[in-house]
Amino acid sequence: MSASQIPPILTNLTTGMLVGERIAESRRTVGDLVGYWSDPEAARQGGDALLYGTQTWMPAEDGVEGAILWGNTVLMPGSVGGEFFMTRGHWHEKLDRCEMCVTVSGSGLLVLMDESRNTWVEQMSPGSTHYVPGNLAHRTVNTGDEPLVFMCAWPADCGHNYGSILELGFGRRFFVGDQF
Amino acid sequence: MSASQIPPILTNLTTGMLVGERIAESRRTVGDLVGYWSDPEAARQGGDALLYGTQTWMPAEDGVEGAILWGNTVLMPGSVGGEFFMTRGHWHEKLDRCEMCVTVSGSGLLVLMDESRNTWVEQMSPGSTHYVPGNLAHRTVNTGDEPLVFMCAWPADCGHNYGSILELGFGRRFFVGDQF
Repeated sequence: MSASQIPPILTNLTTGMLVGERIAESRRTVGDLVGYWSDPEAARQGGDALLYGTQTWMPAEDGVEGAILWGNTVLMPGSVGGEFFMTRGHWHEKLDRCEMCVTVSGSGLLVLMDESRNTWVEQMSPGSTHYVPGNLAHRTVNTGDEPLVFMCAWPADCGHNYGSILELGFGRRFFVGDQF
Repeated sequence: MSASQIPPILTNLTTGMLVGERIAESRRTVGDLVGYWSDPEAARQGGDALLYGTQTWMPAEDGVEGAILWGNTVLMPGSVGGEFFMTRGHWHEKLDRCEMCVTVSGSGLLVLMDESRNTWVEQMSPGSTHYVPGNLAHRTVNTGDEPLVFMCAWPADCGHNYGSILELGFGRRFFVGDQF
């Protein structure tokens, strides 16, 4: 098999799950994000609870210009100190590299923030398809009572910057009982 | 609304259809591809029959570096002079720009060809997810008896080169009754 022959994988478009070769998996617990929550002590207490899992198909290496990576996120329902379960969120290091996401199941919010910290949301529901321009930080929040499952495609060379999110957060947090 | 705020669209993950703003549509008939078939005369006779339709979501302009476009193709079942219905196929002008495709329904072939005209196929069936490295020409062929529906994501700046396919074709054609 030459480098030009990448074995296909299977994407289950009902569940969002990927099966095949070159699939990287990760999982994060509530405690893994302790510094991201408004109530870090509550996060420490809920430490081991699964927050989200991801699968990423890597037909090319991370960082390769012109390649697209494809993966899912399963963000569990729940809250920490009243704050809905969320992903860390990130900036792209290359600020012209976009991201495209399709919701498979569940309901929630795609939170977008510009460089002036203006923050707004897009509603995520089955089939909703979102475009994140490269110059916006983005995070997802599960506001429903079932897992929020979505697929994303992104340029392999976008780079990920989590640091400033840990330090400054987004311009808005999302608590149980709020209106969005 | 700023340029950073692109309205989400809906992707029906069961049918592959897109609904929303900034969606470009196209359709090709058997006759539109007259020069691509092994039997151009048969293609002229079947001229008005729908061959395939596409929808492309354009959250960014074609050609923008770092942007990803997302769209579907519905390739009808059928044959022309015994040759299975197919798309034109193309090269990317930028030979490091990949393409990623997910089959929604139907069955067929993703035909890949390198610069030495070596040609091979990947089987397409529901959920099959394919990575086309940027240096390979690619075409799809519907070998089933229902529409072959698939979604693709590609870099907006990949560029499309159809000319050499019209002139030279692929290294292999796919006829009813062949084994693939």
